[in-house]
Amino acid sequence: MPKLDKSIDALLESYSGHGFVNHAGDVNLPSKQSIEKILRELTELLLPGFGEMEALDHDKLALITAERINRVARNLEQEVEKSVAFGLRNAADSVNASGSADIPAMPKAAGQAFRSCHAGAEILVGSFFSELPAIRAMLGTDIRSAFKGDPAAKSLEEVILSYPGLEAILVHRLAHFFWLQEIPLIPRMMSEYVHSRTGIDIHPGAEIGESFFIDHGTGVVIGETTVIGKNVKLYQGVTLGALSVKKELAGKKRHPTIEDDVTIYAGATILGGDTIIGRGSVIGGNVWITKPVPPGSTIYADEMERR
Amino acid sequence: MPKLDKSIDALLESYSGHGFVNHAGDVNLPSKQSIEKILRELTELLLPGFGEMEALDHDKLALITAERINRVARNLEQEVEKSVAFGLRNAADSVNASGSADIPAMPKAAGQAFRSCHAGAEILVGSFFSELPAIRAMLGTDIRSAFKGDPAAKSLEEVILSYPGLEAILVHRLAHFFWLQEIPLIPRMMSEYVHSRTGIDIHPGAEIGESFFIDHGTGVVIGETTVIGKNVKLYQGVTLGALSVKKELAGKKRHPTIEDDVTIYAGATILGGDTIIGRGSVIGGNVWITKPVPPGSTIYADEMERR
Amino acid sequence: MPKLDKSIDALLESYSGHGFVNHAGDVNLPSKQSIEKILRELTELLLPGFGEMEALDHDKLALITAERINRVARNLEQEVEKSVAFGLRNAADSVNASGSADIPAMPKAAGQAFRSCHAGAEILVGSFFSELPAIRAMLGTDIRSAFKGDPAAKSLEEVILSYPGLEAILVHRLAHFFWLQEIPLIPRMMSEYVHSRTGIDIHPGAEIGESFFIDHGTGVVIGETTVIGKNVKLYQGVTLGALSVKKELAGKKRHPTIEDDVTIYAGATILGGDTIIGRGSVIGGNVWITKPVPPGSTIYADEMERR
Repeated sequence: MPKLDKSIDALLESYSGHGFVNHAGDVNLPSKQSIEKILRELTELLLPGFGEMEALDHDKLALITAERINRVARNLEQEVEKSVAFGLRNAADSVNASGSADIPAMPKAAGQAFRSCHAGAEILVGSFFSELPAIRAMLGTDIRSAFKGDPAAKSLEEVILSYPGLEAILVHRLAHFFWLQEIPLIPRMMSEYVHSRTGIDIHPGAEIGESFFIDHGTGVVIGETTVIGKNVKLYQGVTLGALSVKKELAGKKRHPTIEDDVTIYAGATILGGDTIIGRGSVIGGNVWITKPVPPGSTIYADEMERR
Repeated sequence: MPKLDKSIDALLESYSGHGFVNHAGDVNLPSKQSIEKILRELTELLLPGFGEMEALDHDKLALITAERINRVARNLEQEVEKSVAFGLRNAADSVNASGSADIPAMPKAAGQAFRSCHAGAEILVGSFFSELPAIRAMLGTDIRSAFKGDPAAKSLEEVILSYPGLEAILVHRLAHFFWLQEIPLIPRMMSEYVHSRTGIDIHPGAEIGESFFIDHGTGVVIGETTVIGKNVKLYQGVTLGALSVKKELAGKKRHPTIEDDVTIYAGATILGGDTIIGRGSVIGGNVWITKPVPPGSTIYADEMERR
Repeated sequence: MPKLDKSIDALLESYSGHGFVNHAGDVNLPSKQSIEKILRELTELLLPGFGEMEALDHDKLALITAERINRVARNLEQEVEKSVAFGLRNAADSVNASGSADIPAMPKAAGQAFRSCHAGAEILVGSFFSELPAIRAMLGTDIRSAFKGDPAAKSLEEVILSYPGLEAILVHRLAHFFWLQEIPLIPRMMSEYVHSRTGIDIHPGAEIGESFFIDHGTGVVIGETTVIGKNVKLYQGVTLGALSVKKELAGKKRHPTIEDDVTIYAGATILGGDTIIGRGSVIGGNVWITKPVPPGSTIYADEMERR
C-alpha cells in the first residue's frame, strides 16, 4: 500500500524529530506490563491463594512462596535498575525540567555508569522483601477495619475478595516503600495501575497509618503530601488535595493532614497543606474545607433542598 | 540470595501466625479469576456474538450455546460449592464475626459435610440457567431505555457495544439471583468485577425494576437495601446510600426507595432507609436528600455561582 | 443434565424471538476485542516502546513500525467495513430508530452491497494513518501541558507512563478522527474502552484543542457537542454536560464551549449548549454553571462549612 509507505516515513520522521520514543538507546524505562505482573505476584505473596484459579496446596506453600519471591525479586531488580538509571539521566539533564518535548537518547557514558547500578538495585529489593511481613501486618489492620466499618460486609474473606479499597491500600503500602527510597517512576506506575482498577487515586507519597478503610472508593483522590493517621475512614469521591497547583510548589506540603479516628463521608473536599482535620472529627458528605478543624468536630453541609 | 531466605522465612511465619491465607486446607474460596471468566461467558450467553473476536456463525448457534451452558454450569457449580462450604464454616465460627485476624483452617468434618453439598450446587445452578431467558427479557428493556434516554445514542447496537451502564445492570441482574439464594461471596465478587470495569458500584442486594438506565455512570453507588422501581434513570456520581454505617444495622433497610419513572441527575446524594423518592420525581444534579419526597416532585439545588 | 437442556431450548427461543444476537447473518458488528487490540497497537505507534515488556531496539524501529502499521491497517479496515455496513443497514431500517427490541438479520442484498465497501474502508484507513504524525504532535503538547500543570509530575516520562488523563486524550484524538468521518460504533467503542480504564468519559464527538490536561480524571464527563479550546485544564469529576436529554435534541449543540486557557477544578458541573466559559476563566471546585461566563472570570462556590 503506497499510501501507507508515506505514513510510515512520516511517522519515523516524527520519532527522530520530536522524541517521545522509549528507548531507541541502550537502556529502557520500566515496563508497565512488568510492573503490573509484579504487583499481581506481590498481592499473591501478601494474601496467598486469594488470586489464583486453582486451590493453593498447603504442603507446597513454602516452596511456592520461595519460588515466587525469587522470581519477583529478579523482575523487580530489573525495573528498579531501569528506574534508577532514568533518574540519573534525568537529573543530569535540564531539558526535561524545562518542559521541552524531546526525550534525549541516553549518552553511552550514562549507560555504562548505570550497568554498575545493579548491585544497588539488588540491595534495595532485598530490603523491600524484608518489609513484606510488616506490610502484611498493616494490611491485616486494614482488612479488619473494613469489616467493622461496613454493615454490608459479611466476613473478612468478603473484604479480601471484593473490596476495592483494600486493593488500593495494598498497592499503596507497596508503592510507598519505593517512594521513600526515591525510586523514580515505579511508585507512580504502581499507584496508577490500581487507580485504573478501582477509581481510587492515592499518590505514593501519601503517609497513611494503620486500620485505613475506603468504602466504594470511586473518585477518591489523595495527594502527594497528605498525612493520614490511624483508623481513618473515607467514602467515595473524597478529595484530599492542594489549594494551589503552581509548579514551583513541587516538594512543599500542599495537601491536608488527617488525624487519627477521622471519618470523611462521600464527596467531601479537603484542601491545603495547613488544613489539619483534628482527631476524631466527622466530616459530612460534600463538605468543602480549606481551613484547620479542631479535634472532635462534626461538620455537615446544608441540605440543599428546594422545591 | 541469603537476604531473601530470611524474608521467605519471615513471610511463612506471618502466614502461620496471622492467617489471611486461602486456603491451606482442603477447601478453597471461590476464585476471582474463575468468577470473571464465568461472567464473560454469561454475558456472551445473554448477548451472543457481541463479545467475540470472530463473527458468530448462525448455523452453529444452537451447538455453541449448548456447549457454553454446559461448560459454565460446571464452573459455576464448583464456585457455588466453595461458597456454600465457606458459608457453613463461617456461620459455625464466631471468630470472624468478632473481627479477629485469623481465618481458621477448615475443620476436616466441615470438609466432609461440604462434599455432600455438590448436589445442592447443581440444583441451584440449574435453576439459575432456567432464569436466563427472563433476565434476557429484562435486559432488553434496559437496552431500549438507554437508547430512548440518551440523544447521543445512535442505535441499540451502540448501547450494547459501548454503554457501561448496560454492562453494570447486566452483571447486577445475574449477581442478584445468587444474592436472593443467599450464596455468600459470589454476588459481591460479581458486582466488584463490574465496578472495577465501569466505576458503577451496585450492591447485589439492591432490587432494581425493568427499563433501568445509568448514563456515564462513574461514581454511582447503590447500597445493599435499595429498592428501585421501573423506568428509573440515573447519571454519573449518584449515591443511593445509608445515613448511618453502624455495624449493628446489618440486615436493616438502610438505603432509599426510588419509585417508578424517577430521574436522578449527576452527583445527587440520596440517603436513608425511610427516604422514598415518589413516582415520577426529577432530582437535580448535586442535590442532597435525606427525607421522603412526594410523587411528581422536581428538586433542584441552588446554582452556586458567585463572581 | 435434563434441566439444562430445557434452559438451552428456552434461551435459543429467546434468541430467535427477541433478537439482540450479533450476528446470525453474513456480516458482523465490529469486535470489542479487536478494537481494544487496535488501540493498544496505535498507542505503541504514537509512543513507541512505552507499552512493551521488552526494550525497543533502535535499529529495528523502522521495521517494527512498518510491520505494525500494515498489521493494524488490515485489522482496522475489517472493523471499519463492518461498521459502515452496519450504518447502511441501520439507515435503511427504521426499526431501530423507533426503539424496537429486534435487531433484524441483515438482508442478503445489503451484504452484497457491503462487500464492495472494502475499497472505501481501505481509503479511509489510509488517510487515518497519514494523520498519525499530526496526532502525535498534538499529544506532545498534551504531555508538556500535564508536566507543567502538576507540581507532583517529576518528568515527561512519568506523564507518559502514569497519567490517565494522557491515555484518555490519546484515545480521544484517535476516536475523533473516525467520528469526523461518520463511521458508526467504532468511535464510541474506543471512547468507552478508555473510559473503563480511566474513569474519564469523553464523547468522541467533542472538539478539543492542543495542550489539554486532565488531572486524576475519575468521573470526568465531556459530552458529544462540547468544544474545548487550547491550554484547558480539568480536574476529576468535572461534567461538561447537557441541560436537557430529550431524544429530539440529537444532533443539536447541547454541551458547553470552553475557550482557551480555562482551568476547571474538581467536581464542577457546566451544562448547556449556549454556556460559553470565556477565555482565561478559572472555575472553582463543585461550582454549578448553566449560563455563559465572560472571559477572565473567577468563580468559586461558597465554602459550605457549618459547625
